Amino acid sequence: MTKGGGFVALIGAGPGDAGLLTLRGRELLAAAQCVVYDRLVGDGVLAMMPPEAVKINVGKVGGGHFVPQQEINGILVREAQKGRFVVRLKGGDPFVFGRGGEEIEALNESGIAFEVVPGVTSALGGLACAGIPATHRGVARSIHVVTAHTKEGGLAHLDYEALAKLGGTLVFLMGAAAVPEICSELLRAGMPESSPAAALENASVAAQRLIRGTLAELAGRCAAEKLKAPALVVVGGAVGFAEAFAWKKFLP
Amino acid sequence: MTKGGGFVALIGAGPGDAGLLTLRGRELLAAAQCVVYDRLVGDGVLAMMPPEAVKINVGKVGGGHFVPQQEINGILVREAQKGRFVVRLKGGDPFVFGRGGEEIEALNESGIAFEVVPGVTSALGGLACAGIPATHRGVARSIHVVTAHTKEGGLAHLDYEALAKLGGTLVFLMGAAAVPEICSELLRAGMPESSPAAALENASVAAQRLIRGTLAELAGRCAAEKLKAPALVVVGGAVGFAEAFAWKKFLP
Repeated sequence: MTKGGGFVALIGAGPGDAGLLTLRGRELLAAAQCVVYDRLVGDGVLAMMPPEAVKINVGKVGGGHFVPQQEINGILVREAQKGRFVVRLKGGDPFVFGRGGEEIEALNESGIAFEVVPGVTSALGGLACAGIPATHRGVARSIHVVTAHTKEGGLAHLDYEALAKLGGTLVFLMGAAAVPEICSELLRAGMPESSPAAALENASVAAQRLIRGTLAELAGRCAAEKLKAPALVVVGGAVGFAEAFAWKKFLP
Repeated sequence: MTKGGGFVALIGAGPGDAGLLTLRGRELLAAAQCVVYDRLVGDGVLAMMPPEAVKINVGKVGGGHFVPQQEINGILVREAQKGRFVVRLKGGDPFVFGRGGEEIEALNESGIAFEVVPGVTSALGGLACAGIPATHRGVARSIHVVTAHTKEGGLAHLDYEALAKLGGTLVFLMGAAAVPEICSELLRAGMPESSPAAALENASVAAQRLIRGTLAELAGRCAAEKLKAPALVVVGGAVGFAEAFAWKKFLP
């Protein structure tokens, strides 16, 4: 796998639960000489990092600072140029608001070979862990995923009128702080107050928490129940199945 | 795992490549007493079915017939009621146009416990295998997934004007037969003729094939190159990265 000039594997770690890492993801992670990881990677996945690998946390929360994307790009290039097999481990999927493309552009500029291992995105797989089907025959015929992270040019660019007209499942990643804005804009765009809506905190892991309500109620409920990041917001008829389709209750 | 009255695990097998099955998916598949599988499940994943398990193919292509959804629901209930641990193995993700919700409704009616194991959907992970990022900063800020399968109420219900206005990555699953309709409707809805577009056949596996063109060219190219199902159609600026981000060339 490792070439003379190093090699970088961009791996999607999935929504959090270690069981949702892919087989290819685990195989490559086990071979890593250097792991550059995010704050959204689940603890169970982090525990699979080889003990002898160099580990670089680029998503520090404790110290209150995040490593800028350009610096992350530089770390990947530098570590690969040492001839290492570098794993870039990201929460969810590298290409679903994961900025994997920017890292690949940096690798291309330096002539470094790479592989992409897609992961289960929390936007779909995370919902499934809370019993919410992204689609359901006759109820949710399309899926629309956006980010509420304003630095990514998220909410400011959204055409809420178009989204409201589609009648599908609307998923807003990184939505914890934006629940009031999302709900009020969708209501203004013409979605019914009674539309099923929910916020999902810590999708897939033991701390998972689903806060449900109508589109008119959700912001108040999230405030009352102190919703915390990371969370996604989901709106649409599919949310109405959450109780009937909940399956974690069946597990030991 | 198996309870007195049986248990059903709905597992997403991913886009085809066996390496894109999840760890939890493989763990449960290895324990299956009965596997009910689809035609879109990859051969490498099928090879992981336990030799002693009862295997029921509900997606026969050779004989030219498909098992109706209601019959599949009945098979799951019947096999679980024998006290078996049943795995329902689906291509992609059970909830992304996978009709997993209908199967769960049947299980609920019969009081059968279940688990859902999300998979990597071809709509996102399949694209990644062809070097197409579902999102890219400044170019593709949202993702919209629909099905072109008319029996699922796909194309007939689509609001192309709304889709065309969103400026994100548009993914049409099951799109092989619908390329001309998709392209002409998006053009009619106002998308520029020069919009990057592609059809992706057999995402993620050795037979993967990407046919690219502008929105105006794609239908002609797919006809000339005899695009075959299963294929997805993807439209938007992200398609323009396919060449620069292609990574399979780096693999041995």
